[in-house]
Amino acid sequence: MQLDTPCLVIDADRLENNIRGMAERARRHNVALRPHIKTHKSVEIARMQLDAGACGITVAKVSEAEIMADAGIDDIFIAYPVIGPVKLERLTRLAQRCRRLIVGIDSLAGARALDEAARAAGLKLEVRMEVDIGFARTGIAREDALDLARAVSRMSGLDLTGIFAFKAMTLAGKPSLDLQAAGEEEGRLTVELANRIRADGIPLRDVSAGSTPTAAVIAAQPGITEIRPGTYVFNDMATVASGACQHADCAAGVLVTVVSSNGRDRLVVDGGCKTFSTDSQPGTPPLCLTGFGRVLQDEQLVLNRMTEEHGMMLVKPGAKKHEVGDQLLVIPNHICTTVNLHAQAVLIKDHREILRTIRIDARGCVT
Amino acid sequence: MQLDTPCLVIDADRLENNIRGMAERARRHNVALRPHIKTHKSVEIARMQLDAGACGITVAKVSEAEIMADAGIDDIFIAYPVIGPVKLERLTRLAQRCRRLIVGIDSLAGARALDEAARAAGLKLEVRMEVDIGFARTGIAREDALDLARAVSRMSGLDLTGIFAFKAMTLAGKPSLDLQAAGEEEGRLTVELANRIRADGIPLRDVSAGSTPTAAVIAAQPGITEIRPGTYVFNDMATVASGACQHADCAAGVLVTVVSSNGRDRLVVDGGCKTFSTDSQPGTPPLCLTGFGRVLQDEQLVLNRMTEEHGMMLVKPGAKKHEVGDQLLVIPNHICTTVNLHAQAVLIKDHREILRTIRIDARGCVT
Repeated sequence: MQLDTPCLVIDADRLENNIRGMAERARRHNVALRPHIKTHKSVEIARMQLDAGACGITVAKVSEAEIMADAGIDDIFIAYPVIGPVKLERLTRLAQRCRRLIVGIDSLAGARALDEAARAAGLKLEVRMEVDIGFARTGIAREDALDLARAVSRMSGLDLTGIFAFKAMTLAGKPSLDLQAAGEEEGRLTVELANRIRADGIPLRDVSAGSTPTAAVIAAQPGITEIRPGTYVFNDMATVASGACQHADCAAGVLVTVVSSNGRDRLVVDGGCKTFSTDSQPGTPPLCLTGFGRVLQDEQLVLNRMTEEHGMMLVKPGAKKHEVGDQLLVIPNHICTTVNLHAQAVLIKDHREILRTIRIDARGCVT
Repeated sequence: MQLDTPCLVIDADRLENNIRGMAERARRHNVALRPHIKTHKSVEIARMQLDAGACGITVAKVSEAEIMADAGIDDIFIAYPVIGPVKLERLTRLAQRCRRLIVGIDSLAGARALDEAARAAGLKLEVRMEVDIGFARTGIAREDALDLARAVSRMSGLDLTGIFAFKAMTLAGKPSLDLQAAGEEEGRLTVELANRIRADGIPLRDVSAGSTPTAAVIAAQPGITEIRPGTYVFNDMATVASGACQHADCAAGVLVTVVSSNGRDRLVVDGGCKTFSTDSQPGTPPLCLTGFGRVLQDEQLVLNRMTEEHGMMLVKPGAKKHEVGDQLLVIPNHICTTVNLHAQAVLIKDHREILRTIRIDARGCVT
């Protein structure tokens, strides 16, 4: 396999297994699977997920939704507060060409502007309220959720059909890698809140939670109707470190070339922080990852330092001999932000056969 | 100014000042200015640099050189070892349509492959040898430099015309912010090495060194013929922290919108680590930056946590009141990798007037 590098490479069999496995998990527990496309950003892979049984997709951005809708995917949840006049205008246009478009809300101000835009466009927009169950990001505080739900349920341009939550594996920097306990808590808090709102007479249908590490546990929680994992299509070293998958489940890596060597303890490869994302740092709790990824060919090589175009690998004692021109495959720490740096990926089989190129259609959508 | 966000915004006057200032510095010291386009990745801004007196441009990638050559820029230095058959094929094609193309080498293996590719294409390729003067990245070790220079000077497909060096402000994590001393050392080591090679009968013409923080000092060093700063066009919080520029010299920022607020100590903006690069961490030596950037409107807001699409700002006591829908301008820690995440920038004047959109033509070139 002689590919120009750096090159994002996807193993076709592992990808298929990951997609099928999560779909089966959702089916077994009778919950809908609405995968977040943030990991692959690819129309082709979104279609594979839908073909395997996903009910629709989740996106973070209006621009991502537009690209997926352009490709004919018409059941889309934008799990993010859509704020500002330019975005609202794009959103109402998008809603008119989707079979189902759901939008996240988490504030009265945001909901009011959305309601106004919907009414001005003659639409009734389906919305879900995001609730903060401990991640301290977006999401209305649990104690304020009922008030917001009441206000939104009275807005004639909006149709409040559910709530959604997200809680990453870490909370304020502290490790929380008991996936069973984390998933149960995430599920319990979300369902309790949904039930409290329902008891007020607001008929919520959808209770959506769960990311890749907790998806399996969440799917089994009574009252949960939908899971939204993203990373599972590829997995990465952070997912391995969380205990949610094995090395052999990692379907995506970056092929790089050794471009320089000091002949002793340092190799330089042609992938730096423009090729691998740096948001998942080596040595940072809770993952305690070694380097910015795992070098498949040689565990004694540690990608421990990066500048934009240079990846410096520490050559540990016992490493094999690597020469300028050799290619190495690196499984990144965080695949989602890594994929965002690439315009395409190459789909391979059995480590060697090149099947085809996959476009990262929604790569780098910022708005 | 109502722009859709996140939006990379460039102040036209500051950009022009920065470009003119560096060109004047180079002229004053009678050195060539060959700016690294890694910071802006834009044909339009490269042309502004050339119009102001730059002799040519520096790039890191063959793909970047191809894009600049497509736009008619024909004096290009690829300051990076070009390795692998696919890249060499692209390189020789590129050389045939550039007035001047210079390529970096730092190993015998790399030089041999380049020589072979050049001869096969019937070319004589101009090369510069990269020397490591303490950054421990690419670059031949100083003690091995003469041997490599001798070998390369005997290769009939290559024309060794110079050496180049780069030394960042940090060395193995230790701060080294005495720019005068750092620049003098960088210049002295590079010139000494060039003279040692010349004494061996190898006629080196170009001695190239200097990045934004050290460019002014390096330009004044006897024997230096060229400087290659990149970041100076925009500057960023890391440049401010280095002492090489002032806040008022920062020409590029990212406009974001407040999408969520807990009404107390947290705002969430629509720019996370897909919008701001994370390679320059807050609180990491030697820069001790506060947050992932500086919020222009309010110093009491600290962008202290990011996920892909969410930027969490700590609202410190004394902060102004900010509502969902408000827009904030953030000067990033590292502008080069931030620009790489955006497909375009908006050029503005006097903080309000929108002049035009600038394409980030070579955005996200990985190969």
